[in-house]
Amino acid sequence: MAKGFDRKIGQQAIMYAFAEEEEEALTSKFTQMNWRYGKGKVGSMELQKIVAAIETSAKRQEIVNAELYREMHALYHAIIEAMHGVTRGQVELGGMLRTAGLRFAILRGHPFENKAEGEWIAVAVYGTIGAPVRGFEHEAIGLGINHI
Amino acid sequence: MAKGFDRKIGQQAIMYAFAEEEEEALTSKFTQMNWRYGKGKVGSMELQKIVAAIETSAKRQEIVNAELYREMHALYHAIIEAMHGVTRGQVELGGMLRTAGLRFAILRGHPFENKAEGEWIAVAVYGTIGAPVRGFEHEAIGLGINHI
Amino acid sequence: MAKGFDRKIGQQAIMYAFAEEEEEALTSKFTQMNWRYGKGKVGSMELQKIVAAIETSAKRQEIVNAELYREMHALYHAIIEAMHGVTRGQVELGGMLRTAGLRFAILRGHPFENKAEGEWIAVAVYGTIGAPVRGFEHEAIGLGINHI
Amino acid sequence: MAKGFDRKIGQQAIMYAFAEEEEEALTSKFTQMNWRYGKGKVGSMELQKIVAAIETSAKRQEIVNAELYREMHALYHAIIEAMHGVTRGQVELGGMLRTAGLRFAILRGHPFENKAEGEWIAVAVYGTIGAPVRGFEHEAIGLGINHI
Amino acid sequence: MAKGFDRKIGQQAIMYAFAEEEEEALTSKFTQMNWRYGKGKVGSMELQKIVAAIETSAKRQEIVNAELYREMHALYHAIIEAMHGVTRGQVELGGMLRTAGLRFAILRGHPFENKAEGEWIAVAVYGTIGAPVRGFEHEAIGLGINHI
Amino acid sequence: MAKGFDRKIGQQAIMYAFAEEEEEALTSKFTQMNWRYGKGKVGSMELQKIVAAIETSAKRQEIVNAELYREMHALYHAIIEAMHGVTRGQVELGGMLRTAGLRFAILRGHPFENKAEGEWIAVAVYGTIGAPVRGFEHEAIGLGINHI
Repeated sequence: MAKGFDRKIGQQAIMYAFAEEEEEALTSKFTQMNWRYGKGKVGSMELQKIVAAIETSAKRQEIVNAELYREMHALYHAIIEAMHGVTRGQVELGGMLRTAGLRFAILRGHPFENKAEGEWIAVAVYGTIGAPVRGFEHEAIGLGINHI
Repeated sequence: MAKGFDRKIGQQAIMYAFAEEEEEALTSKFTQMNWRYGKGKVGSMELQKIVAAIETSAKRQEIVNAELYREMHALYHAIIEAMHGVTRGQVELGGMLRTAGLRFAILRGHPFENKAEGEWIAVAVYGTIGAPVRGFEHEAIGLGINHI
Repeated sequence: MAKGFDRKIGQQAIMYAFAEEEEEALTSKFTQMNWRYGKGKVGSMELQKIVAAIETSAKRQEIVNAELYREMHALYHAIIEAMHGVTRGQVELGGMLRTAGLRFAILRGHPFENKAEGEWIAVAVYGTIGAPVRGFEHEAIGLGINHI
Repeated sequence: MAKGFDRKIGQQAIMYAFAEEEEEALTSKFTQMNWRYGKGKVGSMELQKIVAAIETSAKRQEIVNAELYREMHALYHAIIEAMHGVTRGQVELGGMLRTAGLRFAILRGHPFENKAEGEWIAVAVYGTIGAPVRGFEHEAIGLGINHI
Repeated sequence: MAKGFDRKIGQQAIMYAFAEEEEEALTSKFTQMNWRYGKGKVGSMELQKIVAAIETSAKRQEIVNAELYREMHALYHAIIEAMHGVTRGQVELGGMLRTAGLRFAILRGHPFENKAEGEWIAVAVYGTIGAPVRGFEHEAIGLGINHI
Repeated sequence: MAKGFDRKIGQQAIMYAFAEEEEEALTSKFTQMNWRYGKGKVGSMELQKIVAAIETSAKRQEIVNAELYREMHALYHAIIEAMHGVTRGQVELGGMLRTAGLRFAILRGHPFENKAEGEWIAVAVYGTIGAPVRGFEHEAIGLGINHI
């Protein structure tokens, strides 16, 4: 499985989103591979705030060039694809009376052996989704990958 | 995040799906917690074959009781929710000219501190999705969690 | 609720789909109101067969004029809307490894007081949906209403 | 159809949602079967208010235990599934410039002959959906069933 | 292709939405065919405002009879179908942190040779969709057709 | 509207899909702008055949490099987005008992003034969708745009 994909940008983005102490081992590997990376946290009942938080984080950590629509377009679709995994059906939170508390990780690099495949971006989100009631929530995960 | 969820059944299901050598460390922890677990692989352009493979695996590894509809119902919905993360939009593969090669992991246990919350089931899927052309695929992930 | 809708074409379609012995009381009321009506049964893992069965039944029982696209168009959309209630997410059966056994009822008449509102069509479906395993299924319902 | 399902929790939930004078006959049957039940009304352009109203009603009428996430999780998914039948496509109201006026009924009991299948919950919704203009609306129905 | 559809109401609605100087040639043809027509512009992050703008325009330009629910029902579904083409997945704008700037065109007439097919309505929308950032947007199009 | 988008790749792709005699005027403009272009026809009840036909056409007409996954990935998503406009809800044909007969046009070029925005691809589809019965169909349109 995933032969040509031996740098597994998606799995690494998930691991990075999960990571607490192990974070440094991962980021030093990303640096070695010359990948850009960043992570953050966001909690909201409003999906647009989650999208905005990930976009802002990607810009500030210079994973994407905020001046180029083509890069923001690639990032946006990766975020929305990741949110499909979290929301599982409707890409909606508050309108369905639910809230999400998420960590997100963004990776940008060359995941394919073939250099001509160029750069790709992976957005991983992991956290909880549930009722706006403390503890009435379970875990959720999502991953979006796009060429950039 | 995920305060009451300190046994993180979802994250562990994902780690278990990722795991190769590290698998034993995980499964011995599952055994210690008295959780049921199992994993497998499936590749198909037909979504129903992926659902069937996960169901069959869960039955054979005795994670669910195949005689009880309530358990199969809980499992089924967890599988479909996980497949939302993989398919990101339409829960469809071949009909959209794409195929998936997935590893899946199933965990069943008590993720919540409060014993009254009972058992839950987590289905994690990880692998690749893409064109029916070798290497023209990227990673995808999904997680479904349900009470059982 | 449903002030202007006092002939409740939707509720009556559902009652008619449910009906066994009470059927005559309903159909004599439909005749009195000058409504066209019909019912049938269909079970399949293929959604298109369910759509086809309802369409064929509506044509044979002369609820719609099979020569007019505008009538078939109104009926088709009412059927698909009803199937949303049965499938709850993806309008798909076998591709998600599930099957449905349904009774359907079709009503056509003037549900509104205001005659200018003309004729409307209601399609009600009721039955079970579940795994292709005897008894591993629960009830499902759907209702589609359209102007015709 | 629905062989093993002879207590037809779904059909009864719908009948209970429809019921006006006949309500007592139904509720005395529910009591006899040792089922929990409740009903209510809600009208809104905001879907989350409808979800909240059904949840609140289920808690107040002690159909679910508001202290247990597992019960609220089962109820929530049953409500969202029911709303799929009402909204037929996007689980959204005001954002698509439409409003719904609904009666809802909640039943909790043992619908299966096999006692080991345990308790299930059914949420039925019935009413009108349409433009935010008096009388510019038609009927809609939905049913969600879940193990609890 | 589109044999029986030689008056191509959909293509003409799109051309009319695109049209700037060529508009008169189109509208004089519409008048000749005895079709009703109208166009307008709307930009919003709120999908309901776009729906409302198209509905209001259709009423004011007397393309539909605002007193008849059946006509507003036909128009509403045509608008929502058109917005599927613009939104490509979730019929949602601001909740997914995107905005749309659209021209819309509405045509009502007899597109089929067979007079018995009666009147149909076409709603075409064309413009841009993207981030709420100037220039970070690409084109989008949608077409909804319904019997009226 | 569409300020920065003055080469309107989407509108031109639609016009090219519509075009019969006027085709040459368009293609000579495309050549002048150094854009790649191609068109074709496909009719099917199977959505995957439509996707395949557009992909094959784009490869044969050398609009994309069939050796590069990144290009095929960009094209694939543009096709699926275009098919959302045609299918308006579920990206499905035969499974919902409907068929489509489509012309498609593919354009690849620099639509933005800012050269750094690079190349984008537009897929336009236009034709009819309806019952598998001659003439029981209406027009449908779709447009997908992606960075490449």
